[in-house]
Amino acid sequence: VAADDLRDLISQKRAGGAFSSADTARIVAALLDPRASRAQLAALVTTGVLLGFDEQETVRLTEALVASGEVLNLPPSDRPAIDKHSTGGVGDTVTLVLAPLLAACGARVVKLSGRALGHTGGTIDKLEAIPGLRTDLTPAEVAERAERVGVVVAAAGPGLAPADRELYALRDHIAMVDDVALIASSVMSKKIAAGAEHILLDVKTGDGALLDDPAQAEELARSCVRIGQAHGRRTAALVTDMSQPLGPAIGDTLEVIAAIELLASTEQPGSSGPQARLRTLVTELAVVGLRLAGIEDAAPRVEAALAGGAALERLEAMIHAQGGDPGVVSRPRAGFAAAPVVRDWTPGPGTVVGIGCRGLGELVHELAARSRDREEAQAAGLEVRCSLGDTLAPEQVAVRIHAPSAAAADAAEARLGQLVRLGRGPVEVPPLIHARI
Amino acid sequence: VAADDLRDLISQKRAGGAFSSADTARIVAALLDPRASRAQLAALVTTGVLLGFDEQETVRLTEALVASGEVLNLPPSDRPAIDKHSTGGVGDTVTLVLAPLLAACGARVVKLSGRALGHTGGTIDKLEAIPGLRTDLTPAEVAERAERVGVVVAAAGPGLAPADRELYALRDHIAMVDDVALIASSVMSKKIAAGAEHILLDVKTGDGALLDDPAQAEELARSCVRIGQAHGRRTAALVTDMSQPLGPAIGDTLEVIAAIELLASTEQPGSSGPQARLRTLVTELAVVGLRLAGIEDAAPRVEAALAGGAALERLEAMIHAQGGDPGVVSRPRAGFAAAPVVRDWTPGPGTVVGIGCRGLGELVHELAARSRDREEAQAAGLEVRCSLGDTLAPEQVAVRIHAPSAAAADAAEARLGQLVRLGRGPVEVPPLIHARI
Repeated sequence: VAADDLRDLISQKRAGGAFSSADTARIVAALLDPRASRAQLAALVTTGVLLGFDEQETVRLTEALVASGEVLNLPPSDRPAIDKHSTGGVGDTVTLVLAPLLAACGARVVKLSGRALGHTGGTIDKLEAIPGLRTDLTPAEVAERAERVGVVVAAAGPGLAPADRELYALRDHIAMVDDVALIASSVMSKKIAAGAEHILLDVKTGDGALLDDPAQAEELARSCVRIGQAHGRRTAALVTDMSQPLGPAIGDTLEVIAAIELLASTEQPGSSGPQARLRTLVTELAVVGLRLAGIEDAAPRVEAALAGGAALERLEAMIHAQGGDPGVVSRPRAGFAAAPVVRDWTPGPGTVVGIGCRGLGELVHELAARSRDREEAQAAGLEVRCSLGDTLAPEQVAVRIHAPSAAAADAAEARLGQLVRLGRGPVEVPPLIHARI
Repeated sequence: VAADDLRDLISQKRAGGAFSSADTARIVAALLDPRASRAQLAALVTTGVLLGFDEQETVRLTEALVASGEVLNLPPSDRPAIDKHSTGGVGDTVTLVLAPLLAACGARVVKLSGRALGHTGGTIDKLEAIPGLRTDLTPAEVAERAERVGVVVAAAGPGLAPADRELYALRDHIAMVDDVALIASSVMSKKIAAGAEHILLDVKTGDGALLDDPAQAEELARSCVRIGQAHGRRTAALVTDMSQPLGPAIGDTLEVIAAIELLASTEQPGSSGPQARLRTLVTELAVVGLRLAGIEDAAPRVEAALAGGAALERLEAMIHAQGGDPGVVSRPRAGFAAAPVVRDWTPGPGTVVGIGCRGLGELVHELAARSRDREEAQAAGLEVRCSLGDTLAPEQVAVRIHAPSAAAADAAEARLGQLVRLGRGPVEVPPLIHARI
């Protein structure tokens, strides 16, 4: 990639000219070429972000990112392959519940996940809290488990869409992460490279999400769906609320336990227990995903797989197949090392009028960072036992803190006092599902 | 400069926050710090160019660029110090005539000039065509000659506004040169660092200028004047035409000869000789410059200095003081080596309906590049003997080509056929002076 090429592409974009497929291929080649000027690439990305990429440019960029690396192909099967992606949130335990649930309903789920980024958690980090479990599977191991178990959650290897990684690193370096077109092409390039046939997207919005603004989140969802369709993948998206933690647990071990408890519970749909929001979203996503794959009796299948224990059984099989200790499924609270300090925080009385969702995610990362070893870091976290609008009694537990030390628990209590605001109701609680695309 | 500083400044600018003086100082420090990320600086400059810099930011940037290096201070004197700057053009011989003319009218002129850039000529390159003449003067030599001779034209040393050089190199690398605020702060930082008391700007517009669009050129002129005023320098600007070459000569030696001939001529103001446009602009600029310096009887002084030979005498003294052969002033055509091939181009009959002004500048650079040595390169050039709207007779010379070889002259003739378009009149000729700021 000659320097003048990139320079000319900057001028072209400044003058309003969209990038062709050939232009995009040149840019992606430059991202992977260590000799290409990072300054020119930075100016190019900045110009694109500030002037905007149109739909065709976004589709072309996705295509070029996919073509920059290997593409997985699952062996043919009667069972449709469904992939799911969340743009990331706090207490977002969905994948750990939804993946085995979809498998129990007859789909194959191959989910290549990432690690924690910023204030959000990462599915791979959570799974690795299960003793013995491996996430660094080879493509052959992934394919074998997809076929045999129906569900596999592994770390995305470096071979898929390598240019996306370079582009993300550059965007992060130059404060250009929050661009809808670039987020959409990044998300979709990894899904398409991973061989997804049907793609289900959970685009978060609110304080704890990458994009706070619901309109922007909806734009992102639409852009992802359009890219998926342009690449011949059936794609659907929900725009969902992240103005408070989705599930009752935040932290690697606590979220695994919460997922097992949800799959094992006999809680009925529509109940108001601590898992209600997480359960509602998981079942909604499962129904949308199955319908996308052409399965018509989706809703009863989903409820049957939950109530009959088939989904829990798929989780157990998945853990076993990936080398983890399946015993955690039957005894979740006993199967993991507990945090050294567990303390209840009781701020009441009062009504919960505001929750700093992003702040809670950051607080869990801080608790983990203060730990002496990996096991303590995995055990660190928060069990959030209140939701927006709840009225707390004087001694009622709002949050249970799992900390590596008393000092860390003290610091967490002080921070919680800023993040969970009590006052007088009524409170307007944002809907769990903002939009269905 | 920590990387996060620059990253935060990009976010701040994206969010609409203007750069404070402290922010600007940080950016300028990063430009001079080889460890600072060029990618972040590129994103920062691109964000600024695309979202715009306001007037205060432009003033602050100029200030920080000045502060990045040494600042010249002329010794106190009764004679006002006037500096002049052109944004660059083709056949723009103004400095060689105006500098001694202002000195002859009682001003001190210290002009630190640059070399040829792109298709334009450079005053330093032109002056160095005079045998023996030195332009690499020390600050002490500059001050001594300003005092004794009243006029000195020297190469701008690396010590003045070094961050401006870095910023220009970056802008050039990422195709962000044509930004009014950045051009204005670049121009003015060098003038202010060079100690100018009164600043006279000649902002070119048209095909042969940096900014083709007259509205943009006027914006640049206004921005420069505001920056000068904010720094306590009396500043004025003319926006002038560069849709055809300003003077009759393009090329280093040819322009020196043209300057001497103009200063030696007895041509009256308002005549229509080949030097008419150059003469008109020089006298206009001289009058504006002298008035800026508080000299009221400017116009008669200027005419007297031209007609009485005082301006020519100042040029001779300047050449002598800088080590050049002053004999060239009395015998300009004999004082320089002629080009190996001098050929007249006679494209008529017809009316000159269009001139590719930028193309003529590029053609002269090509002629110089085909030369075997420096002397031939200096001698190479074009004498343009026609103006827009002129009607040429069948054998009338439109351009005299000074080439290093017959082959180079052949190529020049072919190119001239594309650049000087003949047709039928009438032709709308742009005014020489578009605006006075």
